[in-house]
Amino acid sequence: MTKKVVTMGELLMRLSTPGYQRFTQAQSFDVVYGGAEANVAVSLSNYGLNSYFVTQLPDNPIGQSADNYLKKYGVNTDYVVKAGDRVGIYFFEKGTSVRPSKVVYDRANSAITKADIEKFDFDEIFKDADWFHFSGITPALGENCIKLVEKAVEAAKKHGVPISVDLNYRKQLWDVEQFEAVMPKLIENADVCIGWLSSIEEKQKEYKLADFAKDSFDEERFKELFSRMREKYNLKYVVTTLRENYSATHNGLAAIIYDGKELYKSKKYDFSIQDRVGAGDAFAAGLIYQLVLNKDHKEALDFAVAASVLKHTIDGDFNVVTENEVMELVKGNTSGSVQR
Amino acid sequence: MTKKVVTMGELLMRLSTPGYQRFTQAQSFDVVYGGAEANVAVSLSNYGLNSYFVTQLPDNPIGQSADNYLKKYGVNTDYVVKAGDRVGIYFFEKGTSVRPSKVVYDRANSAITKADIEKFDFDEIFKDADWFHFSGITPALGENCIKLVEKAVEAAKKHGVPISVDLNYRKQLWDVEQFEAVMPKLIENADVCIGWLSSIEEKQKEYKLADFAKDSFDEERFKELFSRMREKYNLKYVVTTLRENYSATHNGLAAIIYDGKELYKSKKYDFSIQDRVGAGDAFAAGLIYQLVLNKDHKEALDFAVAASVLKHTIDGDFNVVTENEVMELVKGNTSGSVQR
Amino acid sequence: MTKKVVTMGELLMRLSTPGYQRFTQAQSFDVVYGGAEANVAVSLSNYGLNSYFVTQLPDNPIGQSADNYLKKYGVNTDYVVKAGDRVGIYFFEKGTSVRPSKVVYDRANSAITKADIEKFDFDEIFKDADWFHFSGITPALGENCIKLVEKAVEAAKKHGVPISVDLNYRKQLWDVEQFEAVMPKLIENADVCIGWLSSIEEKQKEYKLADFAKDSFDEERFKELFSRMREKYNLKYVVTTLRENYSATHNGLAAIIYDGKELYKSKKYDFSIQDRVGAGDAFAAGLIYQLVLNKDHKEALDFAVAASVLKHTIDGDFNVVTENEVMELVKGNTSGSVQR
Amino acid sequence: MTKKVVTMGELLMRLSTPGYQRFTQAQSFDVVYGGAEANVAVSLSNYGLNSYFVTQLPDNPIGQSADNYLKKYGVNTDYVVKAGDRVGIYFFEKGTSVRPSKVVYDRANSAITKADIEKFDFDEIFKDADWFHFSGITPALGENCIKLVEKAVEAAKKHGVPISVDLNYRKQLWDVEQFEAVMPKLIENADVCIGWLSSIEEKQKEYKLADFAKDSFDEERFKELFSRMREKYNLKYVVTTLRENYSATHNGLAAIIYDGKELYKSKKYDFSIQDRVGAGDAFAAGLIYQLVLNKDHKEALDFAVAASVLKHTIDGDFNVVTENEVMELVKGNTSGSVQR
Amino acid sequence: MTKKVVTMGELLMRLSTPGYQRFTQAQSFDVVYGGAEANVAVSLSNYGLNSYFVTQLPDNPIGQSADNYLKKYGVNTDYVVKAGDRVGIYFFEKGTSVRPSKVVYDRANSAITKADIEKFDFDEIFKDADWFHFSGITPALGENCIKLVEKAVEAAKKHGVPISVDLNYRKQLWDVEQFEAVMPKLIENADVCIGWLSSIEEKQKEYKLADFAKDSFDEERFKELFSRMREKYNLKYVVTTLRENYSATHNGLAAIIYDGKELYKSKKYDFSIQDRVGAGDAFAAGLIYQLVLNKDHKEALDFAVAASVLKHTIDGDFNVVTENEVMELVKGNTSGSVQR
Amino acid sequence: MTKKVVTMGELLMRLSTPGYQRFTQAQSFDVVYGGAEANVAVSLSNYGLNSYFVTQLPDNPIGQSADNYLKKYGVNTDYVVKAGDRVGIYFFEKGTSVRPSKVVYDRANSAITKADIEKFDFDEIFKDADWFHFSGITPALGENCIKLVEKAVEAAKKHGVPISVDLNYRKQLWDVEQFEAVMPKLIENADVCIGWLSSIEEKQKEYKLADFAKDSFDEERFKELFSRMREKYNLKYVVTTLRENYSATHNGLAAIIYDGKELYKSKKYDFSIQDRVGAGDAFAAGLIYQLVLNKDHKEALDFAVAASVLKHTIDGDFNVVTENEVMELVKGNTSGSVQR
Repeated sequence: MTKKVVTMGELLMRLSTPGYQRFTQAQSFDVVYGGAEANVAVSLSNYGLNSYFVTQLPDNPIGQSADNYLKKYGVNTDYVVKAGDRVGIYFFEKGTSVRPSKVVYDRANSAITKADIEKFDFDEIFKDADWFHFSGITPALGENCIKLVEKAVEAAKKHGVPISVDLNYRKQLWDVEQFEAVMPKLIENADVCIGWLSSIEEKQKEYKLADFAKDSFDEERFKELFSRMREKYNLKYVVTTLRENYSATHNGLAAIIYDGKELYKSKKYDFSIQDRVGAGDAFAAGLIYQLVLNKDHKEALDFAVAASVLKHTIDGDFNVVTENEVMELVKGNTSGSVQR
Repeated sequence: MTKKVVTMGELLMRLSTPGYQRFTQAQSFDVVYGGAEANVAVSLSNYGLNSYFVTQLPDNPIGQSADNYLKKYGVNTDYVVKAGDRVGIYFFEKGTSVRPSKVVYDRANSAITKADIEKFDFDEIFKDADWFHFSGITPALGENCIKLVEKAVEAAKKHGVPISVDLNYRKQLWDVEQFEAVMPKLIENADVCIGWLSSIEEKQKEYKLADFAKDSFDEERFKELFSRMREKYNLKYVVTTLRENYSATHNGLAAIIYDGKELYKSKKYDFSIQDRVGAGDAFAAGLIYQLVLNKDHKEALDFAVAASVLKHTIDGDFNVVTENEVMELVKGNTSGSVQR
Repeated sequence: MTKKVVTMGELLMRLSTPGYQRFTQAQSFDVVYGGAEANVAVSLSNYGLNSYFVTQLPDNPIGQSADNYLKKYGVNTDYVVKAGDRVGIYFFEKGTSVRPSKVVYDRANSAITKADIEKFDFDEIFKDADWFHFSGITPALGENCIKLVEKAVEAAKKHGVPISVDLNYRKQLWDVEQFEAVMPKLIENADVCIGWLSSIEEKQKEYKLADFAKDSFDEERFKELFSRMREKYNLKYVVTTLRENYSATHNGLAAIIYDGKELYKSKKYDFSIQDRVGAGDAFAAGLIYQLVLNKDHKEALDFAVAASVLKHTIDGDFNVVTENEVMELVKGNTSGSVQR
Repeated sequence: MTKKVVTMGELLMRLSTPGYQRFTQAQSFDVVYGGAEANVAVSLSNYGLNSYFVTQLPDNPIGQSADNYLKKYGVNTDYVVKAGDRVGIYFFEKGTSVRPSKVVYDRANSAITKADIEKFDFDEIFKDADWFHFSGITPALGENCIKLVEKAVEAAKKHGVPISVDLNYRKQLWDVEQFEAVMPKLIENADVCIGWLSSIEEKQKEYKLADFAKDSFDEERFKELFSRMREKYNLKYVVTTLRENYSATHNGLAAIIYDGKELYKSKKYDFSIQDRVGAGDAFAAGLIYQLVLNKDHKEALDFAVAASVLKHTIDGDFNVVTENEVMELVKGNTSGSVQR
Repeated sequence: MTKKVVTMGELLMRLSTPGYQRFTQAQSFDVVYGGAEANVAVSLSNYGLNSYFVTQLPDNPIGQSADNYLKKYGVNTDYVVKAGDRVGIYFFEKGTSVRPSKVVYDRANSAITKADIEKFDFDEIFKDADWFHFSGITPALGENCIKLVEKAVEAAKKHGVPISVDLNYRKQLWDVEQFEAVMPKLIENADVCIGWLSSIEEKQKEYKLADFAKDSFDEERFKELFSRMREKYNLKYVVTTLRENYSATHNGLAAIIYDGKELYKSKKYDFSIQDRVGAGDAFAAGLIYQLVLNKDHKEALDFAVAASVLKHTIDGDFNVVTENEVMELVKGNTSGSVQR
Repeated sequence: MTKKVVTMGELLMRLSTPGYQRFTQAQSFDVVYGGAEANVAVSLSNYGLNSYFVTQLPDNPIGQSADNYLKKYGVNTDYVVKAGDRVGIYFFEKGTSVRPSKVVYDRANSAITKADIEKFDFDEIFKDADWFHFSGITPALGENCIKLVEKAVEAAKKHGVPISVDLNYRKQLWDVEQFEAVMPKLIENADVCIGWLSSIEEKQKEYKLADFAKDSFDEERFKELFSRMREKYNLKYVVTTLRENYSATHNGLAAIIYDGKELYKSKKYDFSIQDRVGAGDAFAAGLIYQLVLNKDHKEALDFAVAASVLKHTIDGDFNVVTENEVMELVKGNTSGSVQR
């Protein structure tokens, strides 16, 4: 039977300038919807799972547009609560070469920040669920959202649903102190954690929170660090991607996973970029998909990295690819020959 | 010497679905910027005046885009204060035939609602100014905006600058009681008022506030009503447009002005509609332009109605027409022959 | 509890030239998906019903795109069979004024014409269903499709599901003789029939099959004709729209319904046209929606005509409107004032 | 055997603002190519004739684009001379309702104004030709163009090719005095003249040159006027369209032809407008097409008017319609029903 | 005198998603027309030859659009037979980086597969012709097309017209066995063959049919292989391109030609890719163009490779470049400096 | 107080094919305005200076559009003279990979070539000005423009305004002899010269005028050369960029400056290209901006190169970047990480 997976978070409207126009040049914006957890939900639906997304959206035509956008990609929105005033917005200007992409947030006071928690029927939501995923972005949206996530985690736990969390620290939303104060309670109920807290580190200078990409990857230290994370928070797996930013349009990507014994490192890909937003979420979804299907965690990591690399070739937040397409890349087919 | 005119209000981002698409169908939005008073500012600049727009915009690329948009049409933005968090937004879906246009506001907490009043140097702003215009939309945005408008009116008065106000009641922003409580103090310093308060009416049932368009235009009652407005608020002119809505794409328009003696009614135009947003502002600007030039008030009204009719043929909020084009219409040339 | 409604038919790709371009001028095509019954399914979903669409689509990215397009508007596609080679296509060129719109069909050998009937689990499909709708277009697609419809009608009957049929004669697909040979067996199991067979007529010259629109509407003859249809095929209601084609962009529309006693005629609307494809389906959906909710058949007709009129203002095949918007029109609000 | 028809004139690049944007609003221009005589050439090719267009175009990628554009519609460009510096340009802003369309010419010094007359092999061009058409726009482009037209007319005459001329007076190009000084010599070699010279009129005040459209059509006076034209210049037919400009988007159109005996007036059409540029050329082409095929001149006029009316529904300068489509309109089918 | 060249094959409609959108994301398709042999025809016309394309297209507006599209680029379509029901379609999704481009064929039952062979007047077609080119795609379309090609080859032979064939094996259209059974008879009448049959190989494992690109290019083996092809089928030249697929957007390209004595290898180019469809056809056309002009076969190969490389920078199937532009690349100018 | 900077030159309309389309493929052109000196003016305005652009534009809607386009980016156009007939045009086709970009000029007889010199009030223009910049393109437009520049230089000198000149030799506009005859008189009044005259060289073969980019950069020879330039023309700084053209989409860039003592060479950047037009002007503007602010000339050069590199990532002629963005690049941040 098809597995039921649940993700919860904010669904934002993304307004992007066409092509490589700067904000002041644009006479129109391309509209897509996305958000860390919604992106995961779409990937899981693309892979064939019964994927539910939980959020709050205003009961107006913009909220309806956001909802329809998710439904188009097969995500079930039956648990979406219709309340609140506005859909959060982020403006996006795609960079190229030496010019970085730019995000301007206009997400304050969005519907989910005013979540009417009583309207979320978590018992119904987690009934027969096989996985729950959330990210550190939602608790960053304020007290109400912290409560919402806490209630969800609690209910998932009660229903015996495995939980993954992507720490996803965003400095525009909160500072490291707040982040490290709030997250531990949420992590300790999770089975899989993507990323780590800087507080776990002994040698904080070397493994700074925001510094995921390492030219000089030091296996021993990562192992030590992840081991500490894993034990302190009682996790099954600690995972992270390792990104190298050569330019706005050229990156490298690999990932590591620690299962308590071995630190497994995936193959590293080098690739050009069409749209990198959501690549981390594509990674998380790839990992979850494989773990839900009880695949080996190394296989899962390989799948997750390939999925994330593919996301960089896709416009918008969603990783609109099939399982077969990811598997082609895992198998090493990067030739880009026309398929005809 | 070129006259200096000042307008103050909010500058919003308008996000419109392309063509006649509904919100849920759109994959992109056309972006223009506009707002009741900014629209007036652009018209006055188009007609050749030295037009200043006063507002507060956030110091980010979106605020910069809004500012550039005004500058493009020759409006001077030197008095714009850069502060606050966001540019207010309204989503717009153009109707056609029996389907009405739809506006979804997302303007709460915009920069001007947090106006840092001390930063507005009204003495500088009104020095050598020849006119000041504002509308009832700004005070509708909350206490801080009421104070902002009051300070502006006060300063204009002090500098002997003639003032016009367009009442522009919007029921999504405040209710009639609030409106009628706040506006009198602002009106009584004005010289020209577009619209009237329902409280002025004896026979309120007949002249309801929102009911500007009259199939059966009753001259006597309007004269009585405007006479009372004029006296109570010590106005020079009371003015209003008279609109007939046949459908979303076909309207009629005329206007009346009262100078204390005579109620003058303009010619009535029948026309099809490309974009009716800002037509009222085009009317206000046409009127102001003529009055600033000391034209006769009847001539002014004729010009204002023709300008407003032309606006219905122009996309966006701004009435991108020249004085000559308005005059062609005033003279009766509605044949639409190709000019070659 | 939300009603379950089932529609079955073909889902076509529609490729339209942008704006009013002719085929030879187009450098791109706008892509939407639609089809008589799918259009009904979307309307019923828009109105809040639990709407299922049954068809066969190829298991390739084009079939997936068609499927996603329906899901976006909330239609449940769980019963869609994935088999066959191609999605049927129709090319569309929008006319204007004296130039008619043009359709070029490229739908031969589409997936549904090769329907693998055994894969359609009609017992599951009609379990707990509250309505079934199909149109005369599906049996026009060949022997296999006739069998498919017969099996569906049989199963619906078995499960006690009310049935409606829209005759929808299309002369490019079959000739009148074939049409009149096949349809009776399908009609006689239905409760509601939109349209009538010419064979039912005594005075065939006057009521030709294709000639739905009448300038000189003759109530008595329609009553006689519909009475004969109703009795012969044991129908509850016989219905038709009455369209007046003034030009490609200006039409009139009314409708009549006969319940065995009275021939009720709706209000007639005059309106300009943005996109008239699917207007008949919007009518059928409006009627079904009201009848499923057990509304009075006259109310149902009024709703159906207003829904159909609104469709003319919407791009694409789908009538993307809410129940409230239809009701506004039923109540007589055709002024097209901006809603703000 | 397919008839060979020759037209000669300028082929301009037309840069139009998208939709109804004003010049200052446009961020892109739609590009088409056209010109009075080229438009005729395309129509004649559409109707199935072997249509040659003669002009001079620069030997650069812009000249090549213009040439390809004609070829696409089947016009033979083998006689086009490649020389000169630039393709003439006209900027076009489409009006709507009370706002007229606007043309800004940037055609000075275009390739044809520098025509290298020796390179035009008129003996080859008119060998076996069945018709030659030109308009008054070409001689308006200066001395060199007058010579070019004179040589063409002379050669056509020598080869016994029937000639038509569309006077097409354009006040931005020359004044009436120049026009009336140059044209007589060209007209007197023609068989068919569209339009008339004001100098032919006795009552010049009443039939002003530019005033083709008459609300109060006076048959007797037109007969008198055309009779004088016909005799003085030894013409077979004198013809003109009668246009009524209700607005930029709504016109009426009829036409008259005089054969020396009777002044025949066509049916009058009322229609809305998508793009009116080239409507006069569509008329000329319709007339020529019928006359080349030796149709009756009244039939020819009816065809020509219908063709011209259809042009108003087509974007660009070219009348992209088939003979069948024109005939449908001649037969009175203006209902605009979808053809499916 | 300009050389007359004839190509024959299918002309398909290509529907591409805009930019790098995936099929399920697209709301419009870009429309171009193309096909292996039509692409060759356009290149030959671009280079100044008198290029005829032979095919069958339906007599409807879509067939007309395809025809016009060829004419635009100067190809003579006088020999195109108007019959059959539909234009074959292929959907195209452009890949980037590690994501390959995707083709979905919808070409079954296209007009040419129903070719009405009697209507092809091959004696007229090959009269005074200087070259005939076809590819292995046309016989892959079924029995009728095999006959059509056979008749064409026979007639060309009869008229002494040199023949080239591009084997162009496409595994979606037929399997290797069919391919190797049908092609020999067609090859043995040709003078130039692009590609080789696997049956000719002794060491089939090493030179698999589809494996044209070789990292480790083995000159001796290719020489042996091509020598056998040449002798068995009595060819003048055996040719192939050697492609290296680094990614969907980065390739390498060289080519080899064998004249019975020497295996000549061209320079190898490295380049980024805008659109690689038709690059093989651009190669064939470059080769043919040079051979028709009696250029040395090595020069011909150099020209052909440069032409093919340039094609990768051009959108659509057609290689819209001039002879001069190819020569610039042959001469080694790859700097990409702005030409101003 | 904000510095006042003045630039003078031509403002052209640039018509670019969308994406990478060739001229013959385009159905629309993107419209931007630009020109060597106007591009500098916009950059200086972007950096916060009070930037005036001096030119002549026709008094028509196209001239108005050009004017508005400059104003949008904050440039003051109060000194623009409205006279003349046309805005100069250049058509632009963007190259990629091995295909170079192409410019087709259509700028003859533009408004500035007919400059009504008396209408330029240079005393007013240079009053309180802090810098004047012009380029070698303007004198290349003919005698009248030479006089215009001479008068400007003279007036600037009189008002003590520092002057920079970018030699900008364009072989389509004049030949080297004319260039070297005209420029010396203009250079000798300048303080900063970008580029050098070939006549200054001893070893002309090695440092050809057009050959700015050097793979083998020879410091000693450049020093010698610049030293001679500096002395002969009494310059403060001689400057040039050093470009390496790897392909149309991949370049390298550095620059050198000579102050009489030391030849300072900037860092070299390697980058991919979105739009390289205006990159030289971005360099000039960066240099001027820093020099106006009295920054060290080495810092100025570093800033100028970074600004120029950034320009390659921006569509259009204008370098729409902020000072902060340039500084980020100067500091070495080329990672292209998303800024969120």
